[in-house]
Amino acid sequence: MQHRLGRQTVALENPAVILSHAAVGGRQEGEGPLSEYFDHLSGDSFFGEKTWEKAESAMQKLALSKALEKANLAAEDLDYILAGDLLNQCIGTSFGLRDFGIPFYGLYGACSTMGESLALGSLLVAGGFAKRAGAMTSSHFCTAERQYRMPVPYGSQRTPTAQWTATASGCAILGDEGQGPRITVVTCGKIVDKGVTDANNMGAAMAPAAYDTLRAHFSATGTGPKDYDLVLTGDLGVLGRQIVADFFAADGVDMGETYQDCGMLLYDIQKQDMHAGASGCGCSASVLCGYLLGQMEARHLKKILFAPTGALLSPTSSFQGESVPGICHALTIEM
Amino acid sequence: MQHRLGRQTVALENPAVILSHAAVGGRQEGEGPLSEYFDHLSGDSFFGEKTWEKAESAMQKLALSKALEKANLAAEDLDYILAGDLLNQCIGTSFGLRDFGIPFYGLYGACSTMGESLALGSLLVAGGFAKRAGAMTSSHFCTAERQYRMPVPYGSQRTPTAQWTATASGCAILGDEGQGPRITVVTCGKIVDKGVTDANNMGAAMAPAAYDTLRAHFSATGTGPKDYDLVLTGDLGVLGRQIVADFFAADGVDMGETYQDCGMLLYDIQKQDMHAGASGCGCSASVLCGYLLGQMEARHLKKILFAPTGALLSPTSSFQGESVPGICHALTIEM
Repeated sequence: MQHRLGRQTVALENPAVILSHAAVGGRQEGEGPLSEYFDHLSGDSFFGEKTWEKAESAMQKLALSKALEKANLAAEDLDYILAGDLLNQCIGTSFGLRDFGIPFYGLYGACSTMGESLALGSLLVAGGFAKRAGAMTSSHFCTAERQYRMPVPYGSQRTPTAQWTATASGCAILGDEGQGPRITVVTCGKIVDKGVTDANNMGAAMAPAAYDTLRAHFSATGTGPKDYDLVLTGDLGVLGRQIVADFFAADGVDMGETYQDCGMLLYDIQKQDMHAGASGCGCSASVLCGYLLGQMEARHLKKILFAPTGALLSPTSSFQGESVPGICHALTIEM
Repeated sequence: MQHRLGRQTVALENPAVILSHAAVGGRQEGEGPLSEYFDHLSGDSFFGEKTWEKAESAMQKLALSKALEKANLAAEDLDYILAGDLLNQCIGTSFGLRDFGIPFYGLYGACSTMGESLALGSLLVAGGFAKRAGAMTSSHFCTAERQYRMPVPYGSQRTPTAQWTATASGCAILGDEGQGPRITVVTCGKIVDKGVTDANNMGAAMAPAAYDTLRAHFSATGTGPKDYDLVLTGDLGVLGRQIVADFFAADGVDMGETYQDCGMLLYDIQKQDMHAGASGCGCSASVLCGYLLGQMEARHLKKILFAPTGALLSPTSSFQGESVPGICHALTIEM
């Protein structure tokens, strides 16, 4: 029934259509080069709430509400929503979605969540299980810092390899018919762990997973980087992106200039002093649901390969001496 | 193509077959009335590892390996695995699955995870996206205690409404053909929050979600509790089960003796001093993947409604004064 291209890749006979999309960001995102593509930007890191965790939930509420509004749909029109975030027990999502009453499948894919939610959402739509489904995620600099690193007021120094967790949320509404960019191929990633233990160098930890998934996707579909207007990893940053390009170069594949990383697009890295670039679930989610899908609708991009990456660690696993497993899910999106 | 029964329920035209299943447990589970149905029981709460978190990963490795072995399959024979757990960033799962190389969709559904993984897994199989998929989860008393409550050696007193987190893991292998119990109907739950703030009374917090999902399932399928040999919620315990029965009684529906809760089956509550019963992702997972599916294969049960429940809180959300949102996913399983 479906066109399965090997073990981890499916070409959708009935591609899911991205009916609408919305991106929400904070102050740094508003000062970056993609600011004009956001639907909502807030200078208040609390988004009117009393805690940063509640602010993250508020961002998901805003992103979902904006995406529904742009598609002229109500919450009742969604059969499912698939979402998750970085917070312990994904509370950004559960409290953000609590009042919408939409059947909910909760995900944990770390910073690959936008890819995972779009992948499973498009399979549910393509399989005839849903007419419409939402896919969403978020991250918040302040909630991530205090959970993974140090309390923000401590002002700890950042290493050159560190990335800046985006304060952002992205939401896309998928449908089984309609106008808009279509998700045509889905590749599910495997957990890949090459033994990187530096929790301040997530790009290096996730790069092997990105390489593994992109290679599987290219192989299953018989395509290469030149077949896409853009190939985008999620949040590898400057170092991780170079590692992926180096891996492919060793295979004789030139990833070229069409290979970019969302973590290098969201901020002006030099001017905003962002070290290795942006990271967090909200990075690839807001770059996709703001800039990229907007460029596709304006026909400036016709076919992209979107491949968000996640690091499946926790502070506890690092304290216990574990390395950082990575994962990456990839989707072909065509206009 | 699929038989969608309203917004949140799907009747599968090509039901997913449960090809094999395995349950792993610890000391308390081995002393309970279902001990003979476990595939592996360990008196060592560390399962040979140095930390309880690594022990939880070891339990998932064991459950998956046993389930694969019983189906005479290798890891390479699975197209996907869907799994998650209660630990921050789901590290029980990511480190447990790291070495298997199976395409992975990570889930967070708290103690509803066995239901969520079977639901999404059976949709992927029924939709033609996978020939075989794994569904798995785990919990560990000691990792849950120190994450959600108190360090275990502190020996804090437990309230009468408290439940005991199961040290257990369950894994089921789904296929698009073969012999075994079949998943025929899937109902996806909504987040329901009735304002319960007592983190020591999870049964009461999750009961409204269980009622909401069971009611939706009965309504969409035109069935009632008498149409099933057993209706099983996940881990509501003594109090939560009674609340669900009371809700239905107010609607004029007698849930009767066929309605049970996995949290009341796993332990001898009186003899083992388990207060309100068992809880944790591993509770419903091991009761299903040990006892229940075994009883179905032995033809002692022909049709059950399995409805695991999850509490979508975190210690942080409780510290910030939030109530406890619940969710419940339900599956009809027939022999």
